[in-house]
Amino acid sequence: MSRRTTGPEIERLIQLLAKLPGLGPRSARRAALFLIKNRERLLAPMALAMAEAQEKVTICTACGNVDTVDPCTLCTDARRDRTTICVVEEVGDLWALERAGAWGGLYHVLGGTLSAIEGVRPEDLSIGALIERAGAGEVKEVVLALNATVEGQTTAHYITERLKTLGIAASRLAHGVPVGGELDYLDEGTLTQAIRARRPL
Amino acid sequence: MSRRTTGPEIERLIQLLAKLPGLGPRSARRAALFLIKNRERLLAPMALAMAEAQEKVTICTACGNVDTVDPCTLCTDARRDRTTICVVEEVGDLWALERAGAWGGLYHVLGGTLSAIEGVRPEDLSIGALIERAGAGEVKEVVLALNATVEGQTTAHYITERLKTLGIAASRLAHGVPVGGELDYLDEGTLTQAIRARRPL
Ligand SMILES: [Zn+2]
Ligand SMILES: [Zn+2]
Repeated sequence: MSRRTTGPEIERLIQLLAKLPGLGPRSARRAALFLIKNRERLLAPMALAMAEAQEKVTICTACGNVDTVDPCTLCTDARRDRTTICVVEEVGDLWALERAGAWGGLYHVLGGTLSAIEGVRPEDLSIGALIERAGAGEVKEVVLALNATVEGQTTAHYITERLKTLGIAASRLAHGVPVGGELDYLDEGTLTQAIRARRPL
Repeated sequence: MSRRTTGPEIERLIQLLAKLPGLGPRSARRAALFLIKNRERLLAPMALAMAEAQEKVTICTACGNVDTVDPCTLCTDARRDRTTICVVEEVGDLWALERAGAWGGLYHVLGGTLSAIEGVRPEDLSIGALIERAGAGEVKEVVLALNATVEGQTTAHYITERLKTLGIAASRLAHGVPVGGELDYLDEGTLTQAIRARRPL
């Protein structure tokens, strides 16, 4: 707002909210008003939750997950299979796999993908730490759950080559038709992969 | 998340963020991760901004605007025309008019609209306070900037009748084609109003 319409504390809150992914300036104002209207029920608890997160959140030094303990909840869960590691680009991918209940082994968060254009080299990602974990004896398989993008696949290829020298098997996620997906909305590459990897009924 | 994937403080933050308008569970998780990744730059300042807003925000007892001072910044701005009041449903509408620089008088926030279905009566809105302000001597015109909905227009009609008894003129916003609006996306009511209120060139 060019002229002052409201207090500087509120304008500051709107500006900060507008930096969140998914919130533009308009929805940030709406969110700020909603917070103010629900002061006791929402604004106060959120101020507290943010202060607590700010104070306690840490990155797991083993796998890169975000948690309030290090090593993280997943790394210390005795029910998980310690002989398999699922490699993901970002923490959000790990959370998505956990929500799906799709994986029962350990994880490793790379922190991105290799990219010649953006100048991301192997040493900029946690690839060295992954190779070290994989080579420590217990691990039998590494699943590369990277995005089906050029960067994701380049990174998967690079890691596969390095794991080969350790004699550890790498695998990738299956390609195919998403569950509930309609064929005529899918790209040709996905359809070709889905035909090639067809399963007998 | 059914199984614990991360710390309870982070899950709590995600739950609270998901209550904001415009953020679903998925975007709330993305926003939480973004905050955590930008801990110093965003999470810490936002925790502080929320605590400050929580502590300082107040509702203007004169007009209903949200501010950190009472009466609010707008009500005490000597450059504003004190003989005209623009009536809006919600604070967000006031902010929208201020962003547009569309109004130089005072405001009055009703806090909603009359609604037989939802049981909102005149005494549930700040209509009494509006009539009192309008009748205090200085005010010459009241602009009813209410939404072009059945409830908005019912409320406008009710207020107009009450202002008539004080001999104060009420007006409403013009209907017509939004600036930049494409005709074939507009509803029939708007088009009819736009034709009827056509201006000579
Ligand atoms: Zn971990
Ligand atoms: Zn005010």
